[in-house]
Parts: sequence; C-alpha cells; structure tokens
Amino acid sequence: MSKLIAEGEDIFLYLDRRRTYLVRVEAGKSFHTHKGYIQLGDLIGKEYGTRITSSMGIEFVALKPNLRDQIFKVKRRTQISYPKDIALIIMFSGIGPGSRVVEAGTGTGALTTALAYYIKPTGRVYTYEVRPEFREMAIKNLERAGVSEYVESKNKDVIEGIDEEEVDAVILDMATPWLVVPHAYSALKGSGVLVSFSPTIDQIVKTVEALKENGFVGIETVETLMRFMQVERGKTRPQTLMTGHTGYITFARKALMQQDS
Amino acid sequence: MSKLIAEGEDIFLYLDRRRTYLVRVEAGKSFHTHKGYIQLGDLIGKEYGTRITSSMGIEFVALKPNLRDQIFKVKRRTQISYPKDIALIIMFSGIGPGSRVVEAGTGTGALTTALAYYIKPTGRVYTYEVRPEFREMAIKNLERAGVSEYVESKNKDVIEGIDEEEVDAVILDMATPWLVVPHAYSALKGSGVLVSFSPTIDQIVKTVEALKENGFVGIETVETLMRFMQVERGKTRPQTLMTGHTGYITFARKALMQQDS
Amino acid sequence: MSKLIAEGEDIFLYLDRRRTYLVRVEAGKSFHTHKGYIQLGDLIGKEYGTRITSSMGIEFVALKPNLRDQIFKVKRRTQISYPKDIALIIMFSGIGPGSRVVEAGTGTGALTTALAYYIKPTGRVYTYEVRPEFREMAIKNLERAGVSEYVESKNKDVIEGIDEEEVDAVILDMATPWLVVPHAYSALKGSGVLVSFSPTIDQIVKTVEALKENGFVGIETVETLMRFMQVERGKTRPQTLMTGHTGYITFARKALMQQDS
Amino acid sequence: MSKLIAEGEDIFLYLDRRRTYLVRVEAGKSFHTHKGYIQLGDLIGKEYGTRITSSMGIEFVALKPNLRDQIFKVKRRTQISYPKDIALIIMFSGIGPGSRVVEAGTGTGALTTALAYYIKPTGRVYTYEVRPEFREMAIKNLERAGVSEYVESKNKDVIEGIDEEEVDAVILDMATPWLVVPHAYSALKGSGVLVSFSPTIDQIVKTVEALKENGFVGIETVETLMRFMQVERGKTRPQTLMTGHTGYITFARKALMQQDS
Repeated sequence: MSKLIAEGEDIFLYLDRRRTYLVRVEAGKSFHTHKGYIQLGDLIGKEYGTRITSSMGIEFVALKPNLRDQIFKVKRRTQISYPKDIALIIMFSGIGPGSRVVEAGTGTGALTTALAYYIKPTGRVYTYEVRPEFREMAIKNLERAGVSEYVESKNKDVIEGIDEEEVDAVILDMATPWLVVPHAYSALKGSGVLVSFSPTIDQIVKTVEALKENGFVGIETVETLMRFMQVERGKTRPQTLMTGHTGYITFARKALMQQDS
Repeated sequence: MSKLIAEGEDIFLYLDRRRTYLVRVEAGKSFHTHKGYIQLGDLIGKEYGTRITSSMGIEFVALKPNLRDQIFKVKRRTQISYPKDIALIIMFSGIGPGSRVVEAGTGTGALTTALAYYIKPTGRVYTYEVRPEFREMAIKNLERAGVSEYVESKNKDVIEGIDEEEVDAVILDMATPWLVVPHAYSALKGSGVLVSFSPTIDQIVKTVEALKENGFVGIETVETLMRFMQVERGKTRPQTLMTGHTGYITFARKALMQQDS
Repeated sequence: MSKLIAEGEDIFLYLDRRRTYLVRVEAGKSFHTHKGYIQLGDLIGKEYGTRITSSMGIEFVALKPNLRDQIFKVKRRTQISYPKDIALIIMFSGIGPGSRVVEAGTGTGALTTALAYYIKPTGRVYTYEVRPEFREMAIKNLERAGVSEYVESKNKDVIEGIDEEEVDAVILDMATPWLVVPHAYSALKGSGVLVSFSPTIDQIVKTVEALKENGFVGIETVETLMRFMQVERGKTRPQTLMTGHTGYITFARKALMQQDS
Repeated sequence: MSKLIAEGEDIFLYLDRRRTYLVRVEAGKSFHTHKGYIQLGDLIGKEYGTRITSSMGIEFVALKPNLRDQIFKVKRRTQISYPKDIALIIMFSGIGPGSRVVEAGTGTGALTTALAYYIKPTGRVYTYEVRPEFREMAIKNLERAGVSEYVESKNKDVIEGIDEEEVDAVILDMATPWLVVPHAYSALKGSGVLVSFSPTIDQIVKTVEALKENGFVGIETVETLMRFMQVERGKTRPQTLMTGHTGYITFARKALMQQDS
C-alpha cells in the first residue's frame, strides 16, 4: 500500500506545466490560487496523485514532491543551480549511496539537497558556506526537503582549508574554485573526484590549470544545452524559449603524487 | 583509511582522456597496451589513484572505476545509453536510494547498472528483456559492476504486462514505448514517474498521446546536447567533434483516475 | 568620398546594443528617446557614423542602416523571418546578383527585402501573397528599404499555381509548402533550387515526401542555433538568453524527369 | 530558355548526398566513379538538371554548380571556412551587390569566392595573403568559380596596413585579427562593418578589446550550430553526427571619432 498524504507534509500541487506549487498540508487551511482555493485538509489520508477540485471547479493533482520539485520550488535568494547540471555533476562524479562529499559553497542548498538525497542513508555531505544568512536559509531548505540529517553545514570559508579527509568527491560551485584545488587534493581519497561548476571561461581556464598543477588526471570540461519539445501530432517542434547558458562543468580525478616503483 | 586495490577487482587504467581501460587485477597477469605492458599484481595492496609505469616507461594511473566508467567500458552489442541522458533520467524522475523501479528493455544493462547504483541498498530494479542473449549479457555486466543483487532480471516481453505494483518509476528504453503506457499506469504508485527515451519524433508523439489518454500529467519532453571544451590558456574553445543527437526523454506522472469528491 | 546623410533618408540611430532606432531624417524634426531628443536636421550633410549628442547630453551614433537593420527594425504584424535563417536560405540556395526568384508568402516582406537586396540590379523577385493587407504592408516596407523596383508583388494564392518559368529558385515560407512543390517544379529551371522554411516536424516530413515524389534531388533539412557571447576579459561566457527554435530549412534541386538516353 | 551545358564548364555531378563531384565537361573525356564511368561529352548541349546513366547503369544528375558547391568542392590545403559562417558573415555585414570589401587572409579563397559572388558586378574584393602559395591557389580557385574579375589579390601582410580607403566592410579570418583593427578603422567608411571569424575565446576577447579602443560600436559576437535532420515519415530525427564548433563571428561598426558639435 502506498504511503498516504499526511498532515504536515509537502505536496506538489499541479495545475499545468507552468502552474505548480509546493504546499504544506494542514487541516483547516486553504491554499489560494487564481483558479480558486483548495481545502488542504481534504487531502489528508488520500493517495498521492489524487485529483482535487478547487472552489472554482478547476481540477488540480496532489503529487508527491520529488527531488526536482523540491530544488526548484523552494524560495531562494541566489541564482539556482540547474537540475540538468546537478544531474550531470552527480552522475559523472559517481556520487551515490554511501558517498562522503564536500561541497562549497552551500548557497541556498539546492545542490546540497540533491547530494544529500543521493548519498543517503549511509553517506554524508559536508557543506561550506561563509555567509551566515545563506547557511541558515539552506538549513531550512534541507529540513523541508527531509535530508538535513545527512548534511553537516559548516560556517567556514573553504579557501582556508577543508577539514575532512578521504572523501569521495569535492563539489565546487563558487567564484574562485582554483583557490580550493590544493585543499580538495588533500581532502580526497586517491582516485576521488573533483567537480567544479562555473559560468565563465576565465574560471574554467584557471581551474583546469590548478588541477594540472596539483596532480589531477582525467580532466574534462563540458557544457550542456537542454531544449524542451512541444509534442503534439501535426505540430511537434522544439520550443522557442531556451536557456542558452548556465555554466561549464569540470571533472577531474586525484592521482597519487608518488610514482609506483 | 582508503580501501586498497585487491585481487579480482576492476581498476580503471588511465593513460589519457582517450586511452582508458577497465581491467581486472590478477596476480601474475600483465595487461598489454601499445605503450608497453603493466604487471597487474604490482597494484595489489596499493591505493586507488596510484601511478604505475609500463614496461616502456610510460606512466598510467590505476583509478577506481566509477559508475560512468563501468557503463562506458563494458563490452556491449547494442547502442549504449548515453551517460548525459541516464543522468537526466535519474535526476528528473526522482529515483534515489530505496526506489522501486521497473525498466524495459534491459538491453546490455547500461541503464540498469545506473538505476541499481542509485536505488541501493534498499530499493530494487525489475528489468524486462525479451531476448535471452541480451539478458545474459546484462546479468554478467551487472555482476561485474557489483550491483546484481539489487536487480531482478525478467525474460519477459513488457508489452504483455508488468508484474509489479506500486512502483516509484517505470523507465522505458524500447522501440514502442506507447504500447507499455497502460501497463506502466497500473504498475505505478499514484504520483509515480514514467520516463521514456526515444530517438525519433514519431516515437515521442505516440508516447505523449498515450500518456495523455492514460491519466498522466506533468508530461514534458526534452533533449540535451553536451559539448566538450578544450581548455588551455590562450587556446580555449569548444571541441570540433560533438554528438548531434542521442534521443528525446519524456517524463510524466501518474494522476489517479477517480476525481476527489 | 562617402555618401553623406541626406534629408528623407533613414538612419540607424545607435545608443547601445539593445537601443537602436530606424529613423527618417527630416529638417526641423526631432526624435525623442528617454535619453533626450535629437535634432535630426543637424545630421544632414554629415557622414554616416557621426556621433551626435541628445538634449540630455547622451551620445548616439548615426549609422547607415544595413540589410539586417532594415529587416529587424521595420514594423511588422506577423512573426518575422530570422536573419540567421535568411542568411542560410540565400547562401545555400545560390541566390545572388541576377537571380530570378519566386517567393511565397510575402508576409510583411522581411525575406523579400533580403532576396531583392541580393538579386539586384539585374535579377527579379516575384512574391506571392494572398492577404491584401500584408501585401500592402510589404510593399511599403520594400519601398522604405529601397528595393521595391526589383520586386513584383502578386496578390495571388501560390497554391493555385506559379506564373513564372525558368526561375533560379523558389523560396517557400508558408503553412503548407508541400502543396506548392509541383508548381515549384514547373517554375524552376533544371538544377534550380527549392527552399522551404517551416517551424514544425510535420511540415518538413510532408514537404520532403512531396520533393521526393516530384523529381527533386539533393534534398536536405537543417536547423541552426545561434548564441550570442558576452565578451569581456575575465568574464567571457555565452549569454543566458537564447532563441531555442525558429524553424527548419529544407533545400532541394530540380532534376529533369526524362532520363538521358 | 535555360542556358545549356557547354564544353569547358563545370558541372556538379550528383549521385546522392554524400557522393557529389565538381567536374569539367570535355568532349571525349570520361569521368570515373566506383559506380561506373560517365561520358562527359554526352552532356554538351543538354539542360542542367539532366539525368545521365553511367556505364554500370547507375543514374547521376548533372547539376549546375552553385556557390556552395564551388566553395566545398574545390581542392584546398587549409581548413575551409564553413558555409553556415560565410552566410552569416555576408548577411549580417550587409555586403551585397556593389560593396567594396577588404578581406584578410585569402587562404584558399573560399570566403573570397563568396564575397566576390555577392558584390558583383559593380563591387570589388581586395584580398590580402602573405603566403605566395596560398595566393596562387586562391587565384586558380577564383578563376574556376568565374569570379576572379571582381577580386584584387594582394601578396601583402595586412598587419602592415590596408591600402584601400572608404570601403564598406573589412572581413578578417586570420590568427591575430586584433592587430588589424586600427588599419580596418582607417580603411572603413563611417558606419562601415568589421567582421572577424576566430575559433578561440582568446582571439575574440583580444579582438573585442581592440574594437572598443578603436572607436567601433555595435560590437557583438555570436556562434552558430547547424544540425542536419534525417527526414522520413515515422523515423524523423536529428542526425547523430554534428560539427560541434567552427568559430565565433564578431561584428562591429565604425563610429566617427570626432563628436558632433
């Protein structure tokens, strides 16, 4: 039997592709939209996926929020990491259940949420953030997404050093990743992965140079473009609007310094 | 302390970006390349990331294979699923530790390997394949990647039906996904995710039509392009060679049929 | 000596990349912007490229409008053809000085303007448009761009037939290009080029089928993506905003029906 | 009446999209392919577009070479400029019949051929090339394409200066375009266009800086991607192979130095 919608949980209320809402279910509360309001208490005890009608007779669906919904729908103050980039960062770095990962900076916790989701239940994310207000916001977002127990949030400037050792991966989403490359080398296991996300060419050039100087191999930088399709018999075509650039992703792996002899 | 290289394990032998090898470590065996041979026994007890010199004096690095290496380096007879697409399939579908996932068809097990990697240790992949020779190859590949215990391989045509119920996701990488949409609906939990990967427009049109007719919402189709960068001070530029198309990915979520009343 | 700015001519007034204006120079008139007004009469007798200061002390440049400025800056009611696509249509079709070209539909005359510009002074554009209001608007736009003498504008539905014979190229930018393929075949010289611009997959499939059935060879369909770069030392990167899709361009050449014997 | 195929002219012999040949028609000569030979003399007096059967019974089409065929099919020693880029260079720069254009370097004359084609009959291309062997090859290629009378080929290093004045456009396809920017400024009319094609980021940064320092406005840099489609009912999809990068194109316009007062 499926888990049912319970009080105090988030649902992902779906009207259409552009109108979706991350809403906490509370008895006696209603959620107002320009298509009428919804009695949230009516959803308690129902299955996820249930259709519910608003006061204006419009049908919504009460979906269970998944990782992408949680990342996109949480209020953030800074530019958000992009799901397409988060997907590649995680897959190409081999991060998975049980991985121990260092991340800097935390920002509002979008990438942190994804990392925590994939390393659970036995892994751990150590996330560095120098700005207290971001750290607090991220902690709230991680709690809302239900993954805060897998995350250690550190109010520290990663440029001064990384405390952890023998980690599987170091993920950098910050303005000056090249300054952290030597610390990342020290923190990583042999064969461990460094990933850096940066919007500009200057950043990737400096980062790749630092990686080469610090004993990393398998260095590669990619960018991805994602385009949505409008699919409808007789009218199928790519959509007109598209994000042209988010950032470049650089991957590298730690080779040990001493040569085998 | 890091886990050390042990006999019988795979290493990912790295010379440069284009020359990498997935090799099983065995005492007394040597691995031959056109840059000389490597005594594999010498690696036993060393850390992953160790540099090792071939008989011709060329340095290799003995990396620990990660998910992407395992997917790309295993011998396959069919077109391989693309890491960039696998990454998006997993991230956008919310598959993670503990997920129960149906996949069809298995093919050589590339996507199966990734699914198993991310749902472990408590989740499960049920994978359907109608051709026995592919099923056998996939089972070997899953064993080599160390994830076979999380996978149930079924020699059955998914077009005839899906045995499982209340699964979190159904992933289709097959010629006629639209024929499986009603079965996927029955197998999924409310709010569960269907993902379909297809190279042609005709396939996505038929699949999206079937999804609309069968009670799915949140339907969207995307394609991604990935471009490698050549990063070197004063010479930085995108690489000339690029894969122009792999396939389209369609996502949808199950809404329950009965309207709330 | 350069031609000087004269009364009654258009200038392309440039403030920055996003704020440019196509303005007719008239003595005694001023042009108002939110950065102050400009006395247009002051420009008469000056060289193109002259800098001029507005009443608010802001510097503008009085450029000579080129083809792209004329296409983009003229008021239009319909979706405009895209310069990147117009460029490819003209180059790949071999249209140049002296070419005789049939176009349908005229729309607001954007592509017509470009065709006329490239076939002048000895070529000719025959452009078909069934809607009188568009035809009139296009004629005005062609006059403003100074190329109307090279264009014959026809108020006729091209689906009913093409009057011209032995033309070098037929350019179709219309909803149902496949219906015009047989007419285009009759109108073209042997080896002549048909080009069709369409936003949807369905249109290109039907058009390519019609081309194959009607004796065309060298059929190919392409799409282009254009991305602007933000270029600045230390901050260089692709721009975030990008048009994801305009349309597909199909090219084909007429082979004669009778086999050589 | 169409112009007929005459002795001494080039035809573009078409078998299929991948097998096309630029061949000179000579009586008594045959052209050999792996699909049999073709008696070229048989084509004299036939219309362009004629189908002709080889000695092995395979049908070819004798097309009239257009600009793109001439650019792609002529033997060259260096990397060729790309038609998609040439198209954009010409269209965005406003080059057309009557334009006076400076180009550097000539290379094998691919871009020169296109420029000459579009500025004829009253315009002129002044093309600079420092390597005599390239200059000679380019002159032969321009003659073969029938446009040499519109081109003045100069064996001179453009870095030392441009002889022409009051030109409409300066087109740079060379390793160090930024060194030529001041010369280009002097050579251009007010409002004239400079275009530079470069494969690397470093080149565009240096060029854009030089343009800003030398009084150019309207500076913009773009890149284009072109993807071929496989169009066939039920199997339509983008092609797998794609060129990932050719180069960036930078456009700028000359504003006069002295401010209007």
